Amino acid sequence: MSRPAQAIMQRLNALAKISDAPGQITRLFASDAMRRANALVGTWMRAAGMRTHLDAIGNLVGDYAGTAPGAKILLLGSHLDTVRNAGKFDGPLGVLLAIACVQQLHQAKIHLPFAIKVIGFSDEEGVRYQTTYLGSKALAGSFSKNDLRRQDAGGISLADALKTFGGNPARLKSARLDPRQLLGYVEAHIEQGPVLEKKRLAVGLVTSIAGQSRARVRFTGRAGHAGTTPMNGRQDALCAAAELILAAENLARKTPGAVATVGEVSARPGASNVIPGEVWLTLDVRHARDAVRESVSAALKREARQIARRRKLRLVCETVHAAAAVNCCPRLSRLLGQSVRRRQGKLLRLPSGAGHDAAVMAAITPVAMLFVRCKNGLSHHPDESVKTADVGLALKVLNDFLTSLAALGDQGIARRRSRQIKAIL
Amino acid sequence: MSRPAQAIMQRLNALAKISDAPGQITRLFASDAMRRANALVGTWMRAAGMRTHLDAIGNLVGDYAGTAPGAKILLLGSHLDTVRNAGKFDGPLGVLLAIACVQQLHQAKIHLPFAIKVIGFSDEEGVRYQTTYLGSKALAGSFSKNDLRRQDAGGISLADALKTFGGNPARLKSARLDPRQLLGYVEAHIEQGPVLEKKRLAVGLVTSIAGQSRARVRFTGRAGHAGTTPMNGRQDALCAAAELILAAENLARKTPGAVATVGEVSARPGASNVIPGEVWLTLDVRHARDAVRESVSAALKREARQIARRRKLRLVCETVHAAAAVNCCPRLSRLLGQSVRRRQGKLLRLPSGAGHDAAVMAAITPVAMLFVRCKNGLSHHPDESVKTADVGLALKVLNDFLTSLAALGDQGIARRRSRQIKAIL
Repeated sequence: MSRPAQAIMQRLNALAKISDAPGQITRLFASDAMRRANALVGTWMRAAGMRTHLDAIGNLVGDYAGTAPGAKILLLGSHLDTVRNAGKFDGPLGVLLAIACVQQLHQAKIHLPFAIKVIGFSDEEGVRYQTTYLGSKALAGSFSKNDLRRQDAGGISLADALKTFGGNPARLKSARLDPRQLLGYVEAHIEQGPVLEKKRLAVGLVTSIAGQSRARVRFTGRAGHAGTTPMNGRQDALCAAAELILAAENLARKTPGAVATVGEVSARPGASNVIPGEVWLTLDVRHARDAVRESVSAALKREARQIARRRKLRLVCETVHAAAAVNCCPRLSRLLGQSVRRRQGKLLRLPSGAGHDAAVMAAITPVAMLFVRCKNGLSHHPDESVKTADVGLALKVLNDFLTSLAALGDQGIARRRSRQIKAIL
Repeated sequence: MSRPAQAIMQRLNALAKISDAPGQITRLFASDAMRRANALVGTWMRAAGMRTHLDAIGNLVGDYAGTAPGAKILLLGSHLDTVRNAGKFDGPLGVLLAIACVQQLHQAKIHLPFAIKVIGFSDEEGVRYQTTYLGSKALAGSFSKNDLRRQDAGGISLADALKTFGGNPARLKSARLDPRQLLGYVEAHIEQGPVLEKKRLAVGLVTSIAGQSRARVRFTGRAGHAGTTPMNGRQDALCAAAELILAAENLARKTPGAVATVGEVSARPGASNVIPGEVWLTLDVRHARDAVRESVSAALKREARQIARRRKLRLVCETVHAAAAVNCCPRLSRLLGQSVRRRQGKLLRLPSGAGHDAAVMAAITPVAMLFVRCKNGLSHHPDESVKTADVGLALKVLNDFLTSLAALGDQGIARRRSRQIKAIL
């Protein structure tokens, strides 16, 4: 076991003890636990030679200078907030890997031709205010002022929570980064899926962050007595829902790279001896290519309409959320992929089905992502687990990547930057 | 409109005002509303020449004497309790039709060769103590003493509720009727289904009360991230449930007279972006022939096992309730059917998919049932609706039936009784 990897695991354990809810890991945006987490992570940043500050949206930022003043900046990091009753790795792993990279530079007294900014994002999961990516949106300039009026379950507005936390809702624009100063954003994160584990690989290179369509579908038929209503006179909304659930599974199976999920279903009136008169369900469709995702979504909506027509039901189908896919920067990814190949032998490229801060940061700078294997593909659960050896490998890959990037020289990266950004936007 | 039918409708409206919950019709076993309902219905019984009493289980009983002391007894009636937020007709219609029949005899100063006992059953719906048919079970001798210990939502035991109500939990055996004294039990009830309305008929003759199998099925797979778990690695419990829901519909459609219903479904953890790891559902199968019902139930359990095996899920399938079908007495039904044909022209025979007190009473005496058309087949709902003209026709049919039965003479019925009972048991 590499000592730096063990140190990262110890830090993850220490961080896991900081929670808003005793006995579990729960750190919500601008909460007391987040304040304590930032304080602890800040000490590690400073020990790694960084100057730290809290920005206007509550992100913890650590700056490690480049060789020359005014050098371009490479962003590294991930998020420090969690879902309720979370695991130790989703988010913090990326932040601690970034700090460990800088620490090694600092210990070797090396500065690179570019500056490094490590960011512990304040809100990626969106649990407290039901809106995700507050931290990265402020940096990317896509934060919506209206969100400041949102209230949490206790009636505290986002603006007030931020003030109490030490942020500054009036100066969110100051958190915005200048794209012209940036080289890119690189994030390590657990895979949250089973692919690396199945392929017996510690790390993989992310090609893109899948787009997502989320719809809410409601079939309305007619409730009736389960004993006295003959089969041929029924308008059973649950049978219609069952057809759509299977159609979604079937179409996603036939469409390479697509996933479709019905995660919630509710049948009313909901008694064993009453035919369901109304059923609603959620439909989540994702794909790395927007055209494919949109075509699968449209086909499933058509299918829902056909089911409703055939069964004489009413149908309401509303799109709740739609996010375009984000491609990782080919140039940064090539460098990162070379490091993976050097350290692991094999390079597996895979899309990310889950969203990440990188998807938001891609609006202002090229992004690349490294996935780390997690046990059983499990995330958002206390049993979330990552091997120390895999953390060690990820650290080596990231260090290699920094070295390769430095070897290209600041100008070598910058020259191609504007084209990259265009390709991404 | 016949005046007696209008009088029945007025009484149904008066009874509908008696409720445990203001603004709706809710009358639960041994409640204050049931006490007031019994008091009101008792005045109507006495006005129709009956002697009334409350039996040990809280049934309201009205006795109308036969021509000779010791004459056999014909039972008529239905239940006076309701579901929560019920309609006016489910139960009370049968009691008030029976009282109106006796009232016409009383007004014409006619006594028949048999006595008539009109019963307003105290509990058919089973809402308060989660166990049905308390009233008819006590009369049929199938009441389980253990049920006396059941508690309602407020922690009041059935025994205590019954004492307060004026019943006698210690003397439930006294409520039991002697089968040797009985001619049979005849019940009128709303259809609770759409068949009569579709056939444009006011009343129909019930051939049997369907048996019922109720199961609780649970599929356990594996929850997972909806974005990061590829389709081919999923163990989605909701997709399995969807297959079973459609298999049940399909098999019931292909099996004449069968109905199968999934009325409740619950998916966990139940978030739009999480693959359901556990789903449970209820499965209700009914048929007038036990062999058919059992074969459909068994086939669906086999199907569930196959689905679970194919999808690598765990399956738990438990039978919650199984009740055998009850055939109506051919002889009583023939007489009742002749009256229907005389008054309506057409005779439609149909099974009852819902359970009734008659199904319990069949254990001790031959039973027959008359269904009355209800609007849209709706029951257990404030919109439950029956036409006054249909009530008038039902009343004529029942009066005709009593006349025909009287014409056969007490002996004419009794001679064949023991054979009938054997056929039913």
